[in-house]
Amino acid sequence: MTKDIGVALLGLGVVGSCVADVLLDKADKLAEQVGASLVLKKVLERDITKRRSARPNPQTLTDRAEDAIDDPEVDIVIELLGGEHPALEYITRAITNNKHVVTANKEVMAKYGYKLLSLAQKHNVDLRYEASVGSGIPLISSFLQDLAANDISAIYAILNGTTNYILTQMSQEGIDFRTALEQAQKLGYAEANPANDIEGMDTTYKLAILASLAFHTPLSPNNIYCEGISRLATDDFRYAREFGYAIKLLAIARRLPDTIEVRVHPTFTPQNSQLAKVDGVYNAIQVEGDLAGRLVFYGRGAGGLAASSAIMADVLTIARNACRGVTNIPRVELSQRIPVEAMSDVKTRYYFRLQVADRPGVLAQISKVLGDNLISISSVLQKESDLSSQSAVIVIMTHPAEEKAVQKALKDVRHLAVVKEVSNFIRVEG
Amino acid sequence: MTKDIGVALLGLGVVGSCVADVLLDKADKLAEQVGASLVLKKVLERDITKRRSARPNPQTLTDRAEDAIDDPEVDIVIELLGGEHPALEYITRAITNNKHVVTANKEVMAKYGYKLLSLAQKHNVDLRYEASVGSGIPLISSFLQDLAANDISAIYAILNGTTNYILTQMSQEGIDFRTALEQAQKLGYAEANPANDIEGMDTTYKLAILASLAFHTPLSPNNIYCEGISRLATDDFRYAREFGYAIKLLAIARRLPDTIEVRVHPTFTPQNSQLAKVDGVYNAIQVEGDLAGRLVFYGRGAGGLAASSAIMADVLTIARNACRGVTNIPRVELSQRIPVEAMSDVKTRYYFRLQVADRPGVLAQISKVLGDNLISISSVLQKESDLSSQSAVIVIMTHPAEEKAVQKALKDVRHLAVVKEVSNFIRVEG
Repeated sequence: MTKDIGVALLGLGVVGSCVADVLLDKADKLAEQVGASLVLKKVLERDITKRRSARPNPQTLTDRAEDAIDDPEVDIVIELLGGEHPALEYITRAITNNKHVVTANKEVMAKYGYKLLSLAQKHNVDLRYEASVGSGIPLISSFLQDLAANDISAIYAILNGTTNYILTQMSQEGIDFRTALEQAQKLGYAEANPANDIEGMDTTYKLAILASLAFHTPLSPNNIYCEGISRLATDDFRYAREFGYAIKLLAIARRLPDTIEVRVHPTFTPQNSQLAKVDGVYNAIQVEGDLAGRLVFYGRGAGGLAASSAIMADVLTIARNACRGVTNIPRVELSQRIPVEAMSDVKTRYYFRLQVADRPGVLAQISKVLGDNLISISSVLQKESDLSSQSAVIVIMTHPAEEKAVQKALKDVRHLAVVKEVSNFIRVEG
Repeated sequence: MTKDIGVALLGLGVVGSCVADVLLDKADKLAEQVGASLVLKKVLERDITKRRSARPNPQTLTDRAEDAIDDPEVDIVIELLGGEHPALEYITRAITNNKHVVTANKEVMAKYGYKLLSLAQKHNVDLRYEASVGSGIPLISSFLQDLAANDISAIYAILNGTTNYILTQMSQEGIDFRTALEQAQKLGYAEANPANDIEGMDTTYKLAILASLAFHTPLSPNNIYCEGISRLATDDFRYAREFGYAIKLLAIARRLPDTIEVRVHPTFTPQNSQLAKVDGVYNAIQVEGDLAGRLVFYGRGAGGLAASSAIMADVLTIARNACRGVTNIPRVELSQRIPVEAMSDVKTRYYFRLQVADRPGVLAQISKVLGDNLISISSVLQKESDLSSQSAVIVIMTHPAEEKAVQKALKDVRHLAVVKEVSNFIRVEG
């Protein structure tokens, strides 16, 4: 047995408490795997007088970040505060203090991952972030190591458990978005302020991290087209089903000849595809590699236990290396500089739902506008008219078309006197 | 750039040719990732005059293993011969020569993995075998690293593409085993001598490797109960479907309080489960960890490209370490000595298909024998009688029962005058 490995924990929320518990409950097992004991030296918590479920030694608790980050007995800092600030500053300071860092922070890694990894390399310390995407599903390590020889052509992924739970409820129970969101909040699957999840930012951060690893290029979340799920109506789910699709919030990344296409939006996904069958708070990631072919990873995308599985995997890897006196920092392999395809140039299929006047010739007018914009229709559904309002619903599925043509066409369609409303349009994959 | 990393390839079959191609076609990309060039120094091939699709430099070809294994310029030996001998001897010799080894050999790793890993540790070299199970699906690395903090409670897996293809065809096309096997052979999915696949040995080797990693205990394939798929009839698939099941050749490993349960056999798998939906030559592995929860990995379980994805991942990991002068050998963490539960003590549910005399009271007699053996029936199906033979088919699903009670009961049932034949019995999970 060599000397103990000192650990500092920043944040004692749901995930932090689980990590603290694992460090205590599995101490012997972890020590055996590492060849040294992992000792929790400091725990940063805003209110150190609060009663809590986790049981770290009260003497380790501190409300001053420096106590944890600057402690010479701390070898590994686990950052679980979430959000951009002060997490970024703490991680930076820990690295500058030559401490290894494990973080679950997708926002910081999506926005500053490249800089932080370079800084870590300079300081000869490790920065690991397996828990930042897909929680306990091994994704970062798969891209860094297992898929390293592959040229990745595409990623299609469900990366946010909250929105997938809401979409599953809307689809299975026929309830509207607000009701499903309230349910999710009651069950603790959605936060009081759910914007980050439902508007797609959480998924966008995660896609930025994965696509950057997959294509070896730095990628800012600002360059990823992002659309949330709040626009979806129960009718959309009904029509999706009629056409053989589920609606999922997909993170999509594809390698094109000279660019990468990266986007996050609600997506018509074929019912018989594996992603369509991922229900509730689960995540799934489909990767296409030139050697491995299609791989799918499936598991819980959230929750303290699942996150602590990934966090502890990172801690163990670092601790084993430290224990052997090995510095085994992964190279920052973002050597490419691949531009992101403009969203207006993206080509995919579309679903439109329109409310129209219930009179002859309406479909002809709409078809003409679409045709003038080089958009070709693959199927149409005209639904029961509403006698009182004299309106009808027309649902259109298109062949592949360019986003800019579609936006232009929708504008033109809205100007038609016979069109009362473009109720929704959703992109279609597969 | 440091000095080149020398690679020797033992075997130039389907997988070996793909690996050789990748080393040549992706040389620049691999060199960038490693920080040094990977150079194919020697290729062992029985017939070095044969025309082949792979294009290694003819001067690297040799038909003498020693030329490859003893070459001082070779740092990494990739063993792709398959089978026990001489692969075991070559791997042993390479390690003894202080060379790192990458192998796809499930038989050698299942039978001698523990010894070889210990030998590698002694010689301070790495022995990696990601391609031995699940081909391009990252499983070995997931158990060694990503799931390291978990206590694994169970593995349920489809690990053999050949048998899964045959079972899929039998189920979907209603064809019998022989016909499906011949189809698989024509398509190159089954070998001319398919015994290893269809009798379950291939799956057993793979389960030995995975369960050993999952439970940190050495595990001989001889201690794994193994039953192949050749006994399955089209009728079994029909009745399975009627009861809501698919039939899959499952590898099952479960942690019991004092033992581990490990077995490979055709299994009734609920139609709505993820494993039931894995069709064709694909593999899927479901793992249950106390932290990560349920994870499912899905991908191609065979083929040269998928295997070369895993092989090259291992080669890259070793080469990166070698390039940095780091010796980063995973510890052989098989510190436990957990006995294997005797198959006779295993408790699960069962499906029986019986051919009986078509006369009153038959079911009563069978039920009594089962009841006497403490086996309780959950559902029964009596099928149309065959007038000419005056026989009928009875299909029984049981509640959980002990294997030894079931074997005893089946013996007793066979002795009943009214029972013409116990046509099949299949274990049921989920």
